[in-house]
Amino acid sequence: MSESNPQQVRPQDSEAEDLPVAAEVFAAAQRLTGKVQRTPILTCRALNAATGAEIFLKSEHLQKVGAFKARGAANAVALLPEGTQRVATHSSGNHGAALAWAAAEQGIACSVVMPENAPAAKRAAVAAYGADIVLCEPTLAAREGTLAELVAETGAHVVPPFDDRRVIAGQGTVAQEIIGQCRELGFTPDLIVAPVGGGGLLAGVGLAVSALAPDIKVLGAEPAGADDAQRSFRSGERVTEQTPVTIADGLRTTLGARNFSVIRNTVNDIVTVSEDDIRQALALLWTRTKQLVEPSAAVSLAAVLAHPARFRGKRVALVLTGGNMDLETVGELLV
Amino acid sequence: MSESNPQQVRPQDSEAEDLPVAAEVFAAAQRLTGKVQRTPILTCRALNAATGAEIFLKSEHLQKVGAFKARGAANAVALLPEGTQRVATHSSGNHGAALAWAAAEQGIACSVVMPENAPAAKRAAVAAYGADIVLCEPTLAAREGTLAELVAETGAHVVPPFDDRRVIAGQGTVAQEIIGQCRELGFTPDLIVAPVGGGGLLAGVGLAVSALAPDIKVLGAEPAGADDAQRSFRSGERVTEQTPVTIADGLRTTLGARNFSVIRNTVNDIVTVSEDDIRQALALLWTRTKQLVEPSAAVSLAAVLAHPARFRGKRVALVLTGGNMDLETVGELLV
Repeated sequence: MSESNPQQVRPQDSEAEDLPVAAEVFAAAQRLTGKVQRTPILTCRALNAATGAEIFLKSEHLQKVGAFKARGAANAVALLPEGTQRVATHSSGNHGAALAWAAAEQGIACSVVMPENAPAAKRAAVAAYGADIVLCEPTLAAREGTLAELVAETGAHVVPPFDDRRVIAGQGTVAQEIIGQCRELGFTPDLIVAPVGGGGLLAGVGLAVSALAPDIKVLGAEPAGADDAQRSFRSGERVTEQTPVTIADGLRTTLGARNFSVIRNTVNDIVTVSEDDIRQALALLWTRTKQLVEPSAAVSLAAVLAHPARFRGKRVALVLTGGNMDLETVGELLV
Repeated sequence: MSESNPQQVRPQDSEAEDLPVAAEVFAAAQRLTGKVQRTPILTCRALNAATGAEIFLKSEHLQKVGAFKARGAANAVALLPEGTQRVATHSSGNHGAALAWAAAEQGIACSVVMPENAPAAKRAAVAAYGADIVLCEPTLAAREGTLAELVAETGAHVVPPFDDRRVIAGQGTVAQEIIGQCRELGFTPDLIVAPVGGGGLLAGVGLAVSALAPDIKVLGAEPAGADDAQRSFRSGERVTEQTPVTIADGLRTTLGARNFSVIRNTVNDIVTVSEDDIRQALALLWTRTKQLVEPSAAVSLAAVLAHPARFRGKRVALVLTGGNMDLETVGELLV
């Protein structure tokens, strides 16, 4: 990147200099062809009627391992240093399962540090892909400490869940597909909305769109009860601590350093939604599209319901991020 | 039909002489093009692994009104006698909503007699399509009596839920689509499995397959706790009474007269499944395909799980019949 490039990223954090560029998304898309699903774009007249917009659902709950996380994990594993024999991460959610799956596909060993209170279903998924699970106390310090010990012992290569250029580039392939699939249908969407937690997906989407179709607006959607990304975006200073309160369990993490830098430069805005908005969106998706998405996935539709004036009459692509949830909780998540 | 035709149907019941023929399915398919969805066929590697078969899911939960019933209702409404101003039926399930929808599409009034204990969600769906709801006591006698009164008062034309040649022909279009879609994918399925309640779907599927691709085996799948169709099929005498005990609420009705006659002549066998088989199939569909289907829809996959030797190594198309259910019950339906 040259000094004169207006897209140049001005890092705040020292790690943030190691930033992905759009070409890495395009390379990831080629690399992942045939390894991950080109998930379908679904439409539903009832959603159009409920929102006054034309809604296109990019269905990453139908992705390998049931979440877009398969993209970033598969890209990172494909780009491992020569001779890597084991990867590792800490995760209570979809990234652990995604890394376990991606490693198994390449015949590489995988360890996942999981908090003792991680849902049994999540542990079962990681175990089913053949990874070793190392349990620890449910604090960030314990997770990081346990992972560091494991790396010291085994020499495992760490693949972080979002603050990693290979992961961001992998997640960005979602947007490249959306643009291509909409083009096949004969149009360009006006907006793409993606939920934001650690920011791997949103940064990747921003990166891809700014290079491929800069007229498309990219919006992040975030629970008001975990609004660090919006506060970071609006203040220009990355918020690194919060006490999240949201049913969208995939979005409770705080924004990564690289993610923040990329998002500042490529995303148009971040909007927040209430828990009621999320529940209403979730109920609409379940009852009208019959797609069993997880609460975090409903946050992009919640943004359209909560901010109708921004979307009315527009063609809006929403990323449905995943479909992994404890089905016992469906009843209590209903409006 | 001539005496020498081996496919000739030998009616048991007097009404059974008024039987649909395959040409009526083909005419229905033309008539319904653009009015109902050509629903997708979904595949899922986890289901293939769980069954040892190659599974193709005909996704009628993504049909208009969320169930295959839209096909039969739309076909019946399209074939109404000239000048019909109102249709009517009694229904506690998907047929009421389907008829309400089909009538509204044609600008025809609709009355649906519903038992007082019908789920609120089902009443809301019928009302949302603009039909008049007439409540009655939850007995078959009260339902039929109330419908007869309504017809006497309003002159409404009755569209029965399954024992009707227009309805059977409409439901049969599912099979014509399955055969066409599989052909586009380069193969012919070995078997098609469809759940059987009143028998509208199974009779329609049998009719279409026997004319279009008689090498495909057609199997009915039925809860053991509502096995009137299997008993009828095996004894040759239609069972007209049973006390159904099954979570598959769409399959609690007994087989219709016309349906029985067509099924005897065109279907290869009817297999039963336990309630545990249904729950296991439902959990697999929810967790692995992320498709929110109703319990009745899982009965075809349950048949494959319960009778593996019949399906191993085969290409099997399963009809997922619908996706309308009370989401509050998801937790209690889990295995």
